[in-house]
Amino acid sequence: MARQVYAGMDAQDKENDPLYKRRHSLAHILAEAVQRLYPGTKLGFGPPVDNGFYYDFQFTTPLEADKLADIEAEMRRIIAEKQPFTTYELPPEEAVKRLEEAGETLKAEYVRDLAANGQPIHFYENGEFVDLCAGPHVENTSQIPSDSFALDTVAGAYWRGDQSRDMLTRIYGLAFNNKKELKEFLRQREEARKYDHRKLSKELEFYTMCEQIGAGLPLWLPNGTVLREELEKFAKETEQRGGYLRVATPHITNEQLFYTSGHLPYYKDSMFPPMQIDGGQNYYLKPMNCPFHHMIFSSRPRSYRELPLRLAEYGQCYRYEASGTLAGLLRVRGMCMNDAHIYCSPEQLAQEFRAVLDMHRFYYDKFRIDGYWMRLSMHDPLNTKKYVDNPEAWKQSEEAIRQVVREMGVAYEEVPGEAAFYGPKVDFQIRNVVGREETASTNQLDFAVPPRFNLVYTGKDGEYHTPYCIHRAPLGTHERFLAFLMEHFKGAFPTWMSPTQVVIIPVSTDKFGEYAEKLAARLRDQLYRAHADLGDDSFNKKIRAAVTSKIPNILVVGAQEMEEEAVTWRRYAVKEQRTLKFEEFNQILGRMCRDRLMDNFADVVLE
Amino acid sequence: MARQVYAGMDAQDKENDPLYKRRHSLAHILAEAVQRLYPGTKLGFGPPVDNGFYYDFQFTTPLEADKLADIEAEMRRIIAEKQPFTTYELPPEEAVKRLEEAGETLKAEYVRDLAANGQPIHFYENGEFVDLCAGPHVENTSQIPSDSFALDTVAGAYWRGDQSRDMLTRIYGLAFNNKKELKEFLRQREEARKYDHRKLSKELEFYTMCEQIGAGLPLWLPNGTVLREELEKFAKETEQRGGYLRVATPHITNEQLFYTSGHLPYYKDSMFPPMQIDGGQNYYLKPMNCPFHHMIFSSRPRSYRELPLRLAEYGQCYRYEASGTLAGLLRVRGMCMNDAHIYCSPEQLAQEFRAVLDMHRFYYDKFRIDGYWMRLSMHDPLNTKKYVDNPEAWKQSEEAIRQVVREMGVAYEEVPGEAAFYGPKVDFQIRNVVGREETASTNQLDFAVPPRFNLVYTGKDGEYHTPYCIHRAPLGTHERFLAFLMEHFKGAFPTWMSPTQVVIIPVSTDKFGEYAEKLAARLRDQLYRAHADLGDDSFNKKIRAAVTSKIPNILVVGAQEMEEEAVTWRRYAVKEQRTLKFEEFNQILGRMCRDRLMDNFADVVLE
Repeated sequence: MARQVYAGMDAQDKENDPLYKRRHSLAHILAEAVQRLYPGTKLGFGPPVDNGFYYDFQFTTPLEADKLADIEAEMRRIIAEKQPFTTYELPPEEAVKRLEEAGETLKAEYVRDLAANGQPIHFYENGEFVDLCAGPHVENTSQIPSDSFALDTVAGAYWRGDQSRDMLTRIYGLAFNNKKELKEFLRQREEARKYDHRKLSKELEFYTMCEQIGAGLPLWLPNGTVLREELEKFAKETEQRGGYLRVATPHITNEQLFYTSGHLPYYKDSMFPPMQIDGGQNYYLKPMNCPFHHMIFSSRPRSYRELPLRLAEYGQCYRYEASGTLAGLLRVRGMCMNDAHIYCSPEQLAQEFRAVLDMHRFYYDKFRIDGYWMRLSMHDPLNTKKYVDNPEAWKQSEEAIRQVVREMGVAYEEVPGEAAFYGPKVDFQIRNVVGREETASTNQLDFAVPPRFNLVYTGKDGEYHTPYCIHRAPLGTHERFLAFLMEHFKGAFPTWMSPTQVVIIPVSTDKFGEYAEKLAARLRDQLYRAHADLGDDSFNKKIRAAVTSKIPNILVVGAQEMEEEAVTWRRYAVKEQRTLKFEEFNQILGRMCRDRLMDNFADVVLE
Repeated sequence: MARQVYAGMDAQDKENDPLYKRRHSLAHILAEAVQRLYPGTKLGFGPPVDNGFYYDFQFTTPLEADKLADIEAEMRRIIAEKQPFTTYELPPEEAVKRLEEAGETLKAEYVRDLAANGQPIHFYENGEFVDLCAGPHVENTSQIPSDSFALDTVAGAYWRGDQSRDMLTRIYGLAFNNKKELKEFLRQREEARKYDHRKLSKELEFYTMCEQIGAGLPLWLPNGTVLREELEKFAKETEQRGGYLRVATPHITNEQLFYTSGHLPYYKDSMFPPMQIDGGQNYYLKPMNCPFHHMIFSSRPRSYRELPLRLAEYGQCYRYEASGTLAGLLRVRGMCMNDAHIYCSPEQLAQEFRAVLDMHRFYYDKFRIDGYWMRLSMHDPLNTKKYVDNPEAWKQSEEAIRQVVREMGVAYEEVPGEAAFYGPKVDFQIRNVVGREETASTNQLDFAVPPRFNLVYTGKDGEYHTPYCIHRAPLGTHERFLAFLMEHFKGAFPTWMSPTQVVIIPVSTDKFGEYAEKLAARLRDQLYRAHADLGDDSFNKKIRAAVTSKIPNILVVGAQEMEEEAVTWRRYAVKEQRTLKFEEFNQILGRMCRDRLMDNFADVVLE
C-alpha cells in the first residue's frame, strides 16, 4: 500500500510523485466544492497529507456532519468537468489585493506575512477556483480516478495552529492510487481501531487513567502489571547474559546534577517544575537516567580492568508533555525506560555496539517484529559548529559503527548531518499495525558527557583516560513498547507473558469441579497464573469468556479426562484441540514459559 | 543486658527501677563534677537515657575533648564521698530567685515557664550540688558501683532543642548494673559499629550517596541492587502464592487525590512541595501508595466475588524528612515500600489478618529474626473523639484481630488507646544488632478511608457494601529492611541473595584458569552470578579477597579437581572444605537458590 510522509520532500520529489499531486489537487477540488455549495466560506490551508488531504474552512454557519456526502458528490462532478490546472505568479501586494477582493481574509493575512521577502506569490487555478499555492498539481482533474478518494472526517483546527485565533473546520479526505488501495486502507484502519491499545486495554484491563491523578500518568492494573513484569524479567535475564550490572537510582535530584549534565537550562521546558526544599535548593523529577549512572561510574576510581562497565536500570522518568499531546500509552508524562549506559574504551566500541545491535535483533526476532531497519545518523564534517569538536573521535567512531551496522545484514540507511551534538546514533525504525513508521529505539554514542562529568579510568599505562559512553534502550519504554506489543499481538499474548496463563473449565462443575481445582492448584503451586472457572455460568459461556479474555490455554476437563489424569487443551491461537495427560501439558507449559515461546502464533507447534 | 526505654515510664516504674535511679543520679554527679572543675558552668537539662545519662552544659570556655577522664575521676571522688540525696520543694517564685542567685539563668528561664501552673518546684540536693529535679534518685552516691559507668562522648545540643537558642555542650555517659554489663555493652557496640550498614555498604559497595543528587537519596550500586531485586523477587513470589495481584502506579499525582485521601493538608509538612503545571494544577510526589490502590479498586464496579482483593506494589515513595534527621538507609527521603492493600468484607477480616500475620512469621523465620513480638494497638472507647465513630466496626474488628493475634502463639502486648484514628493496628517489634527496639512493620485496619473514596462492592444481596481495607508491609521498605539485614547478616548474605554467588579460584591460573572459566561460564549460563578470578594476584590473595567480599561460595580448582570434573568448595560460613563433583555442587547450588536456604548460617548443612 502506498504510504508517504510528505514532510521534507523537495519540489522534485513532489513533481515525481503522481499520488502526491492527486492528493494536492483533491484538496483544491474539495475547497472548490465547498465554495460552490456554501458560498462565502473562507479558506485556510489545504495540504496533501499521509493517506490523503485536508482543507481548513471558515464556514458562515456550522457544517452539519451529514453533508460530507453532498460535498463528495460535488467533487466528483468537478472531476467530471475535466478542469485543467494552470498556474501564475503575482507580486505580493497584487496578491493581497486579489485575495481581499475575493473575501479570503485569512489567506490575505498569510500573504502579507510572506510578502516580507518580496518574492512573487504563486497561484493555481482550476475551473472557477483560484488558490494561493506552490503546486505541483495534476494537469487536469480528470486524471484523478473518481473512486480512488473519499471524504473521511471533520475536526476543529485553529487558524495557523494558534489557540488564540479562530477555530476553523477541517475536512479530511482519503486518497490512494485506486479504489482497491482505498478499500484496503479502510479495512486495515478498521482492524487497527479494533486493536488500538487503548481499546484493548479497556477490554483486557491492562491500564487505566484517572482524572484525580492526572493526564499521562497510567495506573497499571493487575493484567497490565503482569505484562510489565514479565517483559522486565525477560530484559533483566537478557541483560544479565549480556554482562550488564543493574543499579537503582532515585526519581528526583538536586538541580546541580542537571546543570552538570547540561539538561538545565536547555531541556527545562520538557521537565516538571522544581520543588524547593532545604532553604532554597531546587529538586527536579528526572527526565532521564543518564546522569545518575554517570555518578555511579564516578563514585569511585575505575580501572581499565572494569571496562566495559554496563549499568542497566528499568528507570522511571517524568517529562512534562503538553496535555494536548498526550495519547494513551504512546505519549505519557511518566515512562519506564529499558535503560543502560555502557562505558567502554575506544578499542571496545565496535564490539560493544555490535552487542547492542545484536540484542535488538534478538528481541525483534523473539517478538516477531519484521521489516525493521536502521537509520545511521552521522555528523556533517562541514558543519563543525553543530557538533562536539573532536574530529578524531568522530572519524574513529563513525567508521566503527558503520562497519558494525553493515555486518548486521539488516536494511539500513545512512543519514549525514543528523547525528546528535555529542556523537553518532543508530535508530531502529519499525512499522506499527497500521504501517505507521515509528522509532522503536535509539542508540547513541556519547563523547561529550564523559568529560562533562569528568569520567575517567586508569588505563594499562597508569594514565587517566576518558571512556566512551553508549546510551541504549532496545525495548524503549514500557509504555510505548507494551502499547506496540498489545497492537502487534492484537491483545493475545504468549503464555509466558499472559496475565492468565491457563484456565481450567470443567464440563460440569458439580462432577469435575474438584478435579479442575486440583489441577489449577498444582499449576499455581509452580507459580503459574492459573485458575479453575467454577462459576455458575454455562460451559459454553465460560469458554466464550476465556476466549474473549484471550487466555492462551483453556483446559477442558470431563469424565474421560478425570479418569485418565488428562486434560483437553485448546490453544487460543489454533483451532484444533488435543487431549493429553496433565503431566504432559505441564511439561509443555514449562517449556513455553522457560523458553518464552511465541505460542500466540498458530505456526508454533507444541509437542 | 539491661536495656530500657525511659519515655513513657510513670513515677512508680522509675521508683522500682534501681538502674533508672542510678543513671539519674549519675547525671547529677556529672554536673557536680563539672561545676567543681569548671566553676561558672551553667546547667541545661540532664536526664537518664537508654544505656546511661547525659547533661547539657554552657561552659564559659569550650571543653577540650581530653578532659572527660578528669571529669570521670572527679565523679568517682564524689561517689566515694558518699553524698546522700535529699529533696525539697519551693514555690515557683522562690525557685526562680534561688536559681538566678546561683547564676543558673537557663534553669531559671525554664522554671518561669513551668510556674504558670502554680505547682511547687522540686529540688534534689547531694553534697554541695542542688538541681531542679523530680527524682527519683539513689539514697546515697555510694550506692553506685564506681566501675559500672563511664563517660562516653561529647556533642552539641541546642538549649531546649531550639535552633535559634544557644548551642550547649552535651556530655554522654554510659551506666549499667555492673562492670560486666558495661564491658559487654562496649563490646557489642564495637561489634555493631563494625557491622553498621553504612560501613558495610562502603566496603561491599551496596549503595552510595552523592551531594549533587541530594541527601537521603541513595544510589543503589550493582551489589546493593542485587539485594533489592532478590528480596523483591522473593516477596513477589510469596505474595503471588498468597493470592495478591500486582499493580504499578505513578510517583506523582494531582493534589486532588491527596485532598480526597486527607493527606492534604494534614500531612503536608512531610511531603515534598508541589510542582505546578497545566495552568495552576499542583502535583505532588507520593508519600504513600494507598490512594493510588484505592483508585484502582474504584476504577470499575466490584462484586463480592472479587473479594478479598489484594493489590500489591513495591512502590517508591518520597517524604520530606528534615536534612538533620537523615541517617544512612534508616532515614531517607526516598523509600521503596513492600506495600499492599487488602480489600475485604467484614466476614473475611479475621482470615485475611491471620494470613498477613502468618506471612510476617514466614519471613522472620526465613531470615532467622528471633525474639520479635507484636504490639496490638486498640482504641479507647472512652475517648470517642480520637477515633472514627463506628462502634460496631471497632468492636467487631478488635475482637477478630485480638483472637487472630492470640492464636499466633507469638509474644504480644495489647496497648489500649494507641489505635490509629481509622482502626486498630498490629506492629511487629524487633531488636536490631545492638538490641535497639525497632518497629519492623505496621499492619493497619482502616474503616475510614473506604467511605472517603466511596469504595463499594455489590454484595450477594445485590446491595452496595463498604469493604474493610488492611494496609500491610511485612518487609517495610527496601531501605530499612536491607539495612537491617546487612547488619543482621554482618554483610554475609545467603547464596540466593548474594551479589556474587560463586567465585572460582584456580590454584594456578596458567594451568587451571581455563577449567575455572569453563565452570564459571556454565554457572552464568544458568543465570548464577559467578566468575573465575583469573587476575595476576597470588592464590592466597585471591582467597583473602573473596573472603573479604563475603562471597558465600569459593570453588578452588587444581589438578585433581580438573582431572575429576570436581571442585573444592569453601563456604563463607563454615571452616571445613569439601571436594565434590562440579555437577553435585551445581545441584546443591540450585537447591540453595530455589529454596532460598540460609547457607550464611554455619548450622545449615548442605549435602
